[in-house]
Amino acid sequence: MPTLFLGKSQVLPLLDMKEVIPAVENAFLQWSLGKAQMPPKSYLTVDKGDFRAMPASLPGAAGMKWVNVHPANPAHNLPTVMAVIIYNDPATGYPLAVMDGTDITAYRTGAASAVASKYLARKNPRTLGLVGAGRQAYTQLTAHTAIFNLELIKVFDISDASVTRLIRSFPQYRIEARTLPDVLASDIVCTVTPAHQPVVKKEWVKPGVHINAVGADAHGKEELDPDILNEAVIFVDDMRQASTSGEINVPLDRGLLDPNRIRGSLSDLVGGLKTGRASDKEITVFDSTGLAIEDIACAKLIYEKVKGKEGYTRLNFIEG
Amino acid sequence: MPTLFLGKSQVLPLLDMKEVIPAVENAFLQWSLGKAQMPPKSYLTVDKGDFRAMPASLPGAAGMKWVNVHPANPAHNLPTVMAVIIYNDPATGYPLAVMDGTDITAYRTGAASAVASKYLARKNPRTLGLVGAGRQAYTQLTAHTAIFNLELIKVFDISDASVTRLIRSFPQYRIEARTLPDVLASDIVCTVTPAHQPVVKKEWVKPGVHINAVGADAHGKEELDPDILNEAVIFVDDMRQASTSGEINVPLDRGLLDPNRIRGSLSDLVGGLKTGRASDKEITVFDSTGLAIEDIACAKLIYEKVKGKEGYTRLNFIEG
Repeated sequence: MPTLFLGKSQVLPLLDMKEVIPAVENAFLQWSLGKAQMPPKSYLTVDKGDFRAMPASLPGAAGMKWVNVHPANPAHNLPTVMAVIIYNDPATGYPLAVMDGTDITAYRTGAASAVASKYLARKNPRTLGLVGAGRQAYTQLTAHTAIFNLELIKVFDISDASVTRLIRSFPQYRIEARTLPDVLASDIVCTVTPAHQPVVKKEWVKPGVHINAVGADAHGKEELDPDILNEAVIFVDDMRQASTSGEINVPLDRGLLDPNRIRGSLSDLVGGLKTGRASDKEITVFDSTGLAIEDIACAKLIYEKVKGKEGYTRLNFIEG
Repeated sequence: MPTLFLGKSQVLPLLDMKEVIPAVENAFLQWSLGKAQMPPKSYLTVDKGDFRAMPASLPGAAGMKWVNVHPANPAHNLPTVMAVIIYNDPATGYPLAVMDGTDITAYRTGAASAVASKYLARKNPRTLGLVGAGRQAYTQLTAHTAIFNLELIKVFDISDASVTRLIRSFPQYRIEARTLPDVLASDIVCTVTPAHQPVVKKEWVKPGVHINAVGADAHGKEELDPDILNEAVIFVDDMRQASTSGEINVPLDRGLLDPNRIRGSLSDLVGGLKTGRASDKEITVFDSTGLAIEDIACAKLIYEKVKGKEGYTRLNFIEG
């Protein structure tokens, strides 16, 4: 039985955000139904960075993402983050495919935010604010435009060049460079910065906004003034990960956040076990850290697309 | 930068036990020097089996083995255990190679026992006893014949056919089918059974023997009468793994083993932090559960062998 090998240049054209969003939403549903498995990430720390093993299973799918974070890589012309996904048949353990997971990571992160916005934002959102115009901003934008009819996207970044590049990449949308307070005055806001200190101030946040806090992905990182969280209805993607490495990790550690503000997980929302906003005035926050079930849902999507097709590299990797 | 892909049929011919043993010994040395990293395995359990993520780093090497155990696989003409190793550059995280890890697992397990025998067995051992003649017996035999000048290898298995197959596979050695008590009367004994109850009785064990207890690799499995352990000097490969899934796990759980019989780890021995047998009469036991550092040491060996050679599959997996 051959194993399929898909590099970045094969995976990227197969990723369609309109397919990724329902696949990620379904992963959260399966998780809420107890039909998904996701053991804690295993971290391997080396001198110049770290690696994380992220195993997960969903009905009919199992696998593991192995992803590094090496902050000095741009100086070597390499991405900071690279990921490889091994996708297995859960019935036999056979490695059906080995694929690049770098773009899958970006797409599933955007998709998870869009799912959260679908459940938590006010009906018919018209404006999207992006705090940060780096790599992650692209898939946040793609995911939100895939499911909402947006009139205006407002962007802020400390790098003007990054803002210009983002605007030029999407000529089909009305995207404008704005100040941070202006960006916050949107129906949905996505924060995608590498900040270790809050960049979003309490006074900029308007009643009714939904914020996807995506940037904080490691211990000590935060993007939002804790006072925002203390007035918000908070959902996390996974309580274990969020409390150690998500937006809530620093304020929880410092006792600045009432943990009862955290109403539940996105899977609780998708599975109907919890409810979201009660009014158009409430502030809602989704704390996204990135889950292995999201990755494996995408790997399954990619594998199912190409398993019967010619033109892909297949190797007799493990013989029976 | 291309990523190297090595299937089972490429990896197996590159495995040379005479190279694997010093590589594995060096992994234990680096671990004792604090120059290796090995976070706990992460387990993913599915209906028909499980998967384990085993990350590790050594000086100049990093990676992860992803290995399944699906007991019903032989009915589908597939191996119970299949493994894929992702081998990374620790300096950048780049995935240098993806290789089959199934034969690496068998070789490194044999090599770890041989290293333990080198440090723990009496000088100039002449006889090797194999309890069990399945897959693991082959690499135990190969590893011990690689470093010792053995006169006789004695084998027992509940399957006569397995014993005959093993004997025929190594016409260059004197290998004889014997009873269990006869097999135990050897200088070095390797137990490689899937037993969940002790198969080796106390009265068969002679003073001076060294036993490599390899079969127990999961909670609830054991091969040796706990009374043997209570008269032995015990070394483990890793205390965390051994106490939950190695030979010592059941007697420790039941309070049948004095934990102070466990003198230390094989890395303590290799690093000179502990000493082994004090006399030719002592009984020594090595409890082998299999470590990720052993796998990554082998992956490095294989990668270094082929990195400059033509004739192997290379793909642009992740572009810079």
